[in-house]
Amino acid sequence: MRMVDLIEKKRDGGELTTEEINFFIQGYTRGEIPDYQVSALAMAIYFRDMTDRERADLTMAMVQSGETIDLSAIEGVKVDKHSTGGVGDTTTLVLAPLVAALDIPVAKMSGRGLGHTGGTIDKLEAVEGFHVEISKEQFVELVNKHKIAVIGQTGDLTPADKKLYALRDVTGTVSSIPLIASSIMSKKIAAGSDAIVLDVKTGAGAFMKTVEDAKKLAQAMVRIGNNVGRKTMAVISDMSQPLGRAIGNALEVKEAIDTLRGNGPKDLEELCLALGRQMVFLAGKAESLEKAEKMIRGVIQNGKALEKFKEFLANQGGDPSVVDHPEKLPQAAYQIEVPAKTDGVVAEMIADEIGTAAMWLGAGRATKESEIDLAVGLVMNKKIGDPVKAGESLVTIHANRENVDDVIEKLYASIRIDKQAKAPVLIYDIVTE
Amino acid sequence: MRMVDLIEKKRDGGELTTEEINFFIQGYTRGEIPDYQVSALAMAIYFRDMTDRERADLTMAMVQSGETIDLSAIEGVKVDKHSTGGVGDTTTLVLAPLVAALDIPVAKMSGRGLGHTGGTIDKLEAVEGFHVEISKEQFVELVNKHKIAVIGQTGDLTPADKKLYALRDVTGTVSSIPLIASSIMSKKIAAGSDAIVLDVKTGAGAFMKTVEDAKKLAQAMVRIGNNVGRKTMAVISDMSQPLGRAIGNALEVKEAIDTLRGNGPKDLEELCLALGRQMVFLAGKAESLEKAEKMIRGVIQNGKALEKFKEFLANQGGDPSVVDHPEKLPQAAYQIEVPAKTDGVVAEMIADEIGTAAMWLGAGRATKESEIDLAVGLVMNKKIGDPVKAGESLVTIHANRENVDDVIEKLYASIRIDKQAKAPVLIYDIVTE
Repeated sequence: MRMVDLIEKKRDGGELTTEEINFFIQGYTRGEIPDYQVSALAMAIYFRDMTDRERADLTMAMVQSGETIDLSAIEGVKVDKHSTGGVGDTTTLVLAPLVAALDIPVAKMSGRGLGHTGGTIDKLEAVEGFHVEISKEQFVELVNKHKIAVIGQTGDLTPADKKLYALRDVTGTVSSIPLIASSIMSKKIAAGSDAIVLDVKTGAGAFMKTVEDAKKLAQAMVRIGNNVGRKTMAVISDMSQPLGRAIGNALEVKEAIDTLRGNGPKDLEELCLALGRQMVFLAGKAESLEKAEKMIRGVIQNGKALEKFKEFLANQGGDPSVVDHPEKLPQAAYQIEVPAKTDGVVAEMIADEIGTAAMWLGAGRATKESEIDLAVGLVMNKKIGDPVKAGESLVTIHANRENVDDVIEKLYASIRIDKQAKAPVLIYDIVTE
Repeated sequence: MRMVDLIEKKRDGGELTTEEINFFIQGYTRGEIPDYQVSALAMAIYFRDMTDRERADLTMAMVQSGETIDLSAIEGVKVDKHSTGGVGDTTTLVLAPLVAALDIPVAKMSGRGLGHTGGTIDKLEAVEGFHVEISKEQFVELVNKHKIAVIGQTGDLTPADKKLYALRDVTGTVSSIPLIASSIMSKKIAAGSDAIVLDVKTGAGAFMKTVEDAKKLAQAMVRIGNNVGRKTMAVISDMSQPLGRAIGNALEVKEAIDTLRGNGPKDLEELCLALGRQMVFLAGKAESLEKAEKMIRGVIQNGKALEKFKEFLANQGGDPSVVDHPEKLPQAAYQIEVPAKTDGVVAEMIADEIGTAAMWLGAGRATKESEIDLAVGLVMNKKIGDPVKAGESLVTIHANRENVDDVIEKLYASIRIDKQAKAPVLIYDIVTE
């Protein structure tokens, strides 16, 4: 088999066989197929697309390129949730205890990563004492007993995907639906869950700028999952403005607690319900999405979700009293209000720009070497569609430095007030096949 | 400027600016832009094509990537002829003395190269004593005085094209009209001629399998030439069967002599007239193609073309008496006939397969290290459309080995006799703009 023949086949609109896809991914992982052939193939895929079968094969070839996590020691259907990435996305912190409270095992592997705020582990470390330095045995035992645990990412998962992604990044082949979908799904599948719920973001703060593209990506991923035997569903949600109100690690933990108590921001709550009901349904705990949603509302109302969160924190060394005393979370030295300059209605809040402002405060890592300040961040006092009077606070800046002129300037440049505006749709679509 | 932005621009159907094309070619030549980005761009060009302006810019960027030949010391309009490559193509040997006899300077740089037979220099070396080891000064002097000389290729012409072609060869991006056209034209332009006549082959033995594709390539090259100030025309000619009758170095020299005498194979003569009249016209020696053709027929009939060939051979150390005594050319030890197995009409003679058979005899180089046997080759006694009786010779094999079963087998597999068949069209089209 020769790589150049595969490139020409795809270039001419042909369908690569399973053997050909395995040859390509195995050869590339081993360094036997050079970057220049892979980038040509990636560009041909960009133009010619891949069939559902090819996408599933590519995903599984990347899964098999490295280690995979075996969660079979954990009882029950393991459901993972994945977001394509947004600003102020507190859903994982809410959903994990929520579904665990319904006896669904949450065996979460998480990373730190780069971004506007830290990863799930960074956020949880805002709770004093909480840590993820537990053994695999402890991890499995915790999930089996308490239905919830978080551990740091281990093992060399999907090395083919890492190599391919780095190449796509510099060869204009990132924005290809089959390549994005197989990249995300390979990581989720290698991480060992039985079922996957996807939150595909769309809008200014998301990679998919239009609902149409987001839907295509969601369908591609749902089909891959179902074709390789992992039940998968997706929600297409808005990321034109930050989700919820908090952007920052300790601030998001507090927001998660509020939401588990039933007092969270409406949009965050709505999205958690949409994702949570899919998780409960895929776990086989409810016959329909409607029944699943009722169950979730139940554990919020009866306090079980909040109790599960306390239990989870305590199990991993965290101080559970922060749930009732959120003032124990790290607090920033300065709270600075950003007042509206005119009367009107908030018409625009550019999510990724606002996320960048939070990163400037220290809420996230710009490079791998950056240190995170868990206390700092932003709280959005107004959201798109909210009326506002001149002088009213649009955003509260939580900072550990006195001069935040750069952040204020960025926020004003990212928030537009108009005569009228409507709140955006939060959930555009539900993709189940 | 970033290469990834150029890739994305072309991928999305944009037009690269002159500056962007220069950035790409200069950076690639210097090794600053990696192969994996160039192959992705080449694939994007494959799908998105290039405008006439981009093609001209790419050609000139490749010309400027290395040395260029300065022919300004040679008087008159220097016209070069280029063939996209075929089997038994003796046109250069005929055309060079033909147009030189009409006072048009033929300053030919030629190589040896790989293929079914040798290059022009190899063929001419079948004439005892002929050599191309002359200085540039001698070369210029010979052309100014006698209107004809051949020298070996010197200098590092179009290194960007060499690098790009090698990459395209392994990344499925060879068959892209803008990339083929700019590759060929950059080499011709760097070689310094003022005008260019192109012989674009089509059919089984050619790179362009269909007339439509050959016409697209011809138009692309003619436009590039005219857009960068080199008058260019093209002929689209058949290469479904070998051109003329001879395939082999000494055999082709003899065939060229016959043709200059007016006794050559009809197809070779017809193609030489078609190409020659464009050369004479572009050199400004005739007001129309019709008048140019009359002039060419004139120098064949009055013997001036043949005299010019003798003069040319003698100038470069060759024995001109071969022209009147072709038996002085290298002769193979064995002449073996390949008889028809049935009565009928020759319906197919697959050009590239027959060329390969000639190479097996030693007429051409399979690798750079191969040695050429100037005496060996094939003479096609029949061509497509010719009636044939069982036992009549289809091909005469000229070999320096006794056992040529492999060649005979290959020939039978490449020649099909049917109940009826017509000779193919030789010249499909003339492209002048």
